Amino acid sequence: MSKGYQTEPWQLAWRGLDLAELDRTESTFALSNGHIGLRGTLEEGEPRGLPGTYLNGFYEEHPLPYGEAGYGYPEAGQTVVNVTDGKIIRLLVEDEPLDMRYGRALSHERVLDFRSGTLRRHTEWESPTGRRVSVRTERLVSFTQRAVAAIHYEIEPVDDIQLVVQSDLLANEPIEHRSGDPRVAAALDHPLVGDFAVAEGRRAVLAHHTRHSGLRMAAAMDHDIDAQDNLRTAIHAETDLARFTVAVDVPAGGRLRLTKYLGYGWSANRSVPALRAQVEAALEGALQTGWRGLLAEQRQYLDHFWAAADVEVDGDEALQQAIRFALFHVLQAGARGETRAIPGKGLTGPGYDGHAFWDTEIFVLPLLTYTVPEAARDALRWRHSTIDKARERATQLGQRGAAFPWRSINGAECSAYWPAGTAAFHVSGGVAYATAQYVAATGDTTFERDCGTEILVETARLWMALGHNDPHDGFRIDGVTGPDEYTAVVDNNLYTNLIAQKNLREAAAACERHPDLAQHLAVSGDELAAWTEAADRMAIPFDAKLNVHQQCEGFTSHAEWDFANTPQDRYPLLLNYPYFDLYRKQVTKQADLVLAMHLRGDVFSEAAKARNFDYYEARTVRDSSLSASTQAVLAAELGHLDLAYDYLAEAAFTDLNDLHDNARNGLHMASLAGAWSAVVAGFGGMRDHDGKLTFAPRTPPALTSFSFRMRLRDTSFQVFVDRTSATYRIISGGPLHTAHHGEPIVVEPGTDVTLPIPAAPYHPAPHQPEGRQPKRLRES
Amino acid sequence: MSKGYQTEPWQLAWRGLDLAELDRTESTFALSNGHIGLRGTLEEGEPRGLPGTYLNGFYEEHPLPYGEAGYGYPEAGQTVVNVTDGKIIRLLVEDEPLDMRYGRALSHERVLDFRSGTLRRHTEWESPTGRRVSVRTERLVSFTQRAVAAIHYEIEPVDDIQLVVQSDLLANEPIEHRSGDPRVAAALDHPLVGDFAVAEGRRAVLAHHTRHSGLRMAAAMDHDIDAQDNLRTAIHAETDLARFTVAVDVPAGGRLRLTKYLGYGWSANRSVPALRAQVEAALEGALQTGWRGLLAEQRQYLDHFWAAADVEVDGDEALQQAIRFALFHVLQAGARGETRAIPGKGLTGPGYDGHAFWDTEIFVLPLLTYTVPEAARDALRWRHSTIDKARERATQLGQRGAAFPWRSINGAECSAYWPAGTAAFHVSGGVAYATAQYVAATGDTTFERDCGTEILVETARLWMALGHNDPHDGFRIDGVTGPDEYTAVVDNNLYTNLIAQKNLREAAAACERHPDLAQHLAVSGDELAAWTEAADRMAIPFDAKLNVHQQCEGFTSHAEWDFANTPQDRYPLLLNYPYFDLYRKQVTKQADLVLAMHLRGDVFSEAAKARNFDYYEARTVRDSSLSASTQAVLAAELGHLDLAYDYLAEAAFTDLNDLHDNARNGLHMASLAGAWSAVVAGFGGMRDHDGKLTFAPRTPPALTSFSFRMRLRDTSFQVFVDRTSATYRIISGGPLHTAHHGEPIVVEPGTDVTLPIPAAPYHPAPHQPEGRQPKRLRES
Repeated sequence: MSKGYQTEPWQLAWRGLDLAELDRTESTFALSNGHIGLRGTLEEGEPRGLPGTYLNGFYEEHPLPYGEAGYGYPEAGQTVVNVTDGKIIRLLVEDEPLDMRYGRALSHERVLDFRSGTLRRHTEWESPTGRRVSVRTERLVSFTQRAVAAIHYEIEPVDDIQLVVQSDLLANEPIEHRSGDPRVAAALDHPLVGDFAVAEGRRAVLAHHTRHSGLRMAAAMDHDIDAQDNLRTAIHAETDLARFTVAVDVPAGGRLRLTKYLGYGWSANRSVPALRAQVEAALEGALQTGWRGLLAEQRQYLDHFWAAADVEVDGDEALQQAIRFALFHVLQAGARGETRAIPGKGLTGPGYDGHAFWDTEIFVLPLLTYTVPEAARDALRWRHSTIDKARERATQLGQRGAAFPWRSINGAECSAYWPAGTAAFHVSGGVAYATAQYVAATGDTTFERDCGTEILVETARLWMALGHNDPHDGFRIDGVTGPDEYTAVVDNNLYTNLIAQKNLREAAAACERHPDLAQHLAVSGDELAAWTEAADRMAIPFDAKLNVHQQCEGFTSHAEWDFANTPQDRYPLLLNYPYFDLYRKQVTKQADLVLAMHLRGDVFSEAAKARNFDYYEARTVRDSSLSASTQAVLAAELGHLDLAYDYLAEAAFTDLNDLHDNARNGLHMASLAGAWSAVVAGFGGMRDHDGKLTFAPRTPPALTSFSFRMRLRDTSFQVFVDRTSATYRIISGGPLHTAHHGEPIVVEPGTDVTLPIPAAPYHPAPHQPEGRQPKRLRES
Repeated sequence: MSKGYQTEPWQLAWRGLDLAELDRTESTFALSNGHIGLRGTLEEGEPRGLPGTYLNGFYEEHPLPYGEAGYGYPEAGQTVVNVTDGKIIRLLVEDEPLDMRYGRALSHERVLDFRSGTLRRHTEWESPTGRRVSVRTERLVSFTQRAVAAIHYEIEPVDDIQLVVQSDLLANEPIEHRSGDPRVAAALDHPLVGDFAVAEGRRAVLAHHTRHSGLRMAAAMDHDIDAQDNLRTAIHAETDLARFTVAVDVPAGGRLRLTKYLGYGWSANRSVPALRAQVEAALEGALQTGWRGLLAEQRQYLDHFWAAADVEVDGDEALQQAIRFALFHVLQAGARGETRAIPGKGLTGPGYDGHAFWDTEIFVLPLLTYTVPEAARDALRWRHSTIDKARERATQLGQRGAAFPWRSINGAECSAYWPAGTAAFHVSGGVAYATAQYVAATGDTTFERDCGTEILVETARLWMALGHNDPHDGFRIDGVTGPDEYTAVVDNNLYTNLIAQKNLREAAAACERHPDLAQHLAVSGDELAAWTEAADRMAIPFDAKLNVHQQCEGFTSHAEWDFANTPQDRYPLLLNYPYFDLYRKQVTKQADLVLAMHLRGDVFSEAAKARNFDYYEARTVRDSSLSASTQAVLAAELGHLDLAYDYLAEAAFTDLNDLHDNARNGLHMASLAGAWSAVVAGFGGMRDHDGKLTFAPRTPPALTSFSFRMRLRDTSFQVFVDRTSATYRIISGGPLHTAHHGEPIVVEPGTDVTLPIPAAPYHPAPHQPEGRQPKRLRES
């Protein structure tokens, strides 16, 4: 049996002990429901890469340092806090603590099960003095009981043995912070200030607050024990530690079973007693449901998810696993966020300080919108809950409307580098894009009236302030930064202009649908007309000499990057070359214009797409994890099916193969969700321009067939694609009006529609910069 | 007699006591020789704005903080250190310390004398208990004895009185630092670490070093006393304080006269004993010369300076004073720098952390080159001494040649904001410009061989790395920042391209003059040819629709700034609007393209200059002190003589009227030198394109006549201009070949040449943004 990750369709397993890999697998084995996140650390707490227990939206504030400050620079940063750790269950085997660094692992296996929604572990360990135990654990973060996590812990000694189990709540775990700024380090060292600690029986509660952001939290634990008699238990609580101890003599063949229930809550407003009540209530609910009940609920929730969202690929087992891994983690990130952000890393690690970016709306929400729409809605409700901050930010920047932040936890801008932060106004266009997409896909008029229209209107107003009508050039949006982080502060970034164009039109349409809301938002007829005119006159930079669109004005006149003299070990370029040199050359970190050709494919001819793809493919180094999936989508559309397949694989395996060497800090949610896009929008050819869902499926040579499931309004359906035909099938709900390769079709419940797949278009194969071809499937 | 500044032709006087004005006058009354700088604080040390004793090049290092760091960001900042203060002479009148905050100033006058090169003070003070004394002081920082300063202190009591005089050396004076970063504050609080303290007789020496930059310094004092008998003296030294005390009973009508001699030295290499020897030797020299001798040498030095450099304006006494004030301070900044930088504030205050910028080469050096050429040479030798750092910086940035820093004390880049720092590569072009200008004006082949050619070659190489040949557009220099700090990181900044063009041509010419140096610098024939081709093909952005040149590519397509809705109290704009919004609009902080039309006026037609001036004048807010003088030059050339006069006045009065509300931090050397340019290049029409000196003088209506003196090679000459004619006169040296309004002339020694002045060209008066017209003469 090989070591490391095991290829299986419905789970991620790791066999064998490899301490050097612990930090990465803590991310891949993380459990979350979008509210609570637990990294996949071993129960005994050590050895570990990074411990990590996160509560979505719970952060500490710290000053943002500047060597030279400027007007409008954010003063405060936000960093996700590693909260009170309830995962810890220590085991003393006679007088030896179970510690995988010592003694011998006779066997060691961990399994993240995509259908049970649990992380299982089985370790057979021999202590340095030769005592053997078998430890089985299973843990979950409940999808159904949002404030609850639970761990089932079972020990089976090989010989008669005395065991001591210590189950902890531990606040302010010592971890290394890498900030060079002593004020930041000071803010994040021991971030939690104790408010309250109580322990009685098998239950303990610790309450804390953060020093600067002033958020309060409580963590509670309770326990069920199933063991022989002669059990001695104790409980104790102090400011930063609560400990429940079980000491027991277990005969050979006997077992000690312990279930640890965890309740978490936090609030900026509620008092300590209210928070205590909240977590104790969560515990009561969990105890009432019980371990088996929690397991059953978890499975039911996931059965429902997979029925609506599963993607199957036939012909590549590793890819099958990677795609389900991706879907599972994106679900975990968004399932129960409930008006909190979906961070770039979900709740799997402290990377990016726990901030949410535009990734959420452009990469993660399409998947959720078409599979778990209530999760997409909640994420958009979070954005809407921050609209006052976005309005203030726009005003501070001398603009109008709402400017959503580049990076944030609570909605306030936290980016300390404005050219790649504040100037990336496309963030707001992305919010509008996802809003329109969600409303079109779900018909959720409640959301549209409560939140959607206001988002569209305020972001449209931002574009009107940012842009100006030039008599010759049309509506220009100058001095902003598009998605590509190797180009900044440019005029008429094509992606930005096209996302703004759609934003303006969607805002106008929403106001026409809801005149009462338009009036409430003080949208005049003149304003509406101005939006439409700006959209119609939007500047589209194009290089007539080269016959390609320009990523931004002047882009194609810039010097080429000297790829031939750029050794592979100098990637990612931003770590080895200055921004100024990257910005002024024709090198792109990630799909930018190519992303525009996906999201706004309706405004490009196929010939233009082919020329543009060829041109930018040769200049894209993909130092960003946000790139491969988009390249997959356009490659597939243009008939480069093998290339699309490789990009799909790269997106799907980003974290499993740790392609960016930073999986230890958390998973790349956008890249994982991008794997779904690469299948559904890439090989499935799914597009939803103007709210009309269409398909143009094609199976890549590497697969014999593939299928995916989606939801549109009340209809759940499946698209099955093999080498010659595609079959559309209603799973539940009413008929589906769509199109297959440009032909309108209607799929009725009970009547599958099977249609032939036309030949793929032919375009010469594009070339990538030297050494920057997509990575083939993981080597393992 | 009015209070405040007094209008007198050869001195700056301030009458009356105004404690609120102390900090500003400490800057205007600062004394310096370019090596030592003493702010104009009162001898008794307090009250004071900012104490300040500076040694050129003596700085402390501190970390530069970044919220988000990037490749190639400088890690260390440098800040000029307030070194051991030797200015302090405290006086105890009976039991009352002389302190202008208490008692009563019966009279108080301070005079900075431009011909004696001293700062005089006369104070008649009545103590709170009614004792009266008259204190007269005079101090100088010697132009002739570089390491020496001296203070002559004279007290005359009105009644019989006991006096105690304490003359101090005080290290680590407590001053406030405004950095928000605790690491920076820590580095600058108590920056000096004591190495050595000794006192004997009337002499004391203190030696210190800086904690991080590792520089060592010594300060020494000695004293002459002229007083009645019954004198008691004492001397004492400890780590941070040396004190010489004189106690004496002075009868009414008697006097106590004390001369304090100060010696300063610093080094990165020399040991403490060597530094002690150096400052004691400086003291011995000063004592040998004596106070009267130092005064005489100082006057002789300045007589020589004024004979070669004086500018006279007839018809505006305040302007006359301001111009001589300007010339005097620029001389003080550069006179004895001797391979140290000329900081943006000279040695008059801690502003800009004591850093030198491109101001030196483009604004300050033209004045020095044509009046005190050895000072210009020394400043350029400083640049050359940093060429290895500039080469390393270029390499770090992925370029070739030498990239001089945006801001620095020791030659290493200290700018923490790259878009307005590192990206401003025109700095290196400015160094090359000043090099070529100095060599052409002086014919100093020793400098050209030692330093000049290498500077030209290495900066030319930088441009070749930064730019690229585009088949359509010519030689493009993309993604750099020009002089205007309200526009950044742009393509083909016109000023940058034209300064690069000249740089490339001057480098080629220098290599042709010195083939051996070219070979030594490994300049091949191909490289030479490439420079010439790049210069010939240099991209010149022009808007054919508007018929104006573009400050940079795309500039004229940007949105206009909404001046109508910008209240005057929101200037300077950078304190009230974000960079991103300033950068993307047609608003310029300072002359940029207009500066190009001055320095590279040879490549613009008069019609183009007129159109461009009109266009950019309407968009320039002059939030920079580097702007008015350049606007004066072009306004004068285009016949807008009144406007030019107002700009001249604004430049000349920048600090006297504290137009930027920061004179307390030091004087604006570039603005002061710019006043000279406004007269000589503006109304004098002086140009030196291709090393040929020409004139096109015209007297503005506000003046009846004006004249200026210059040096060219070994010739010293004067140009006198009235309303109808100009007279060229050789003061010393050989004939002058020049041109008058385009007509070549030769001026022979002893034979004045008088020529009529042609009518000024007519162009419609340009308009400035609302409220941004030049400020008229100071209101006082």
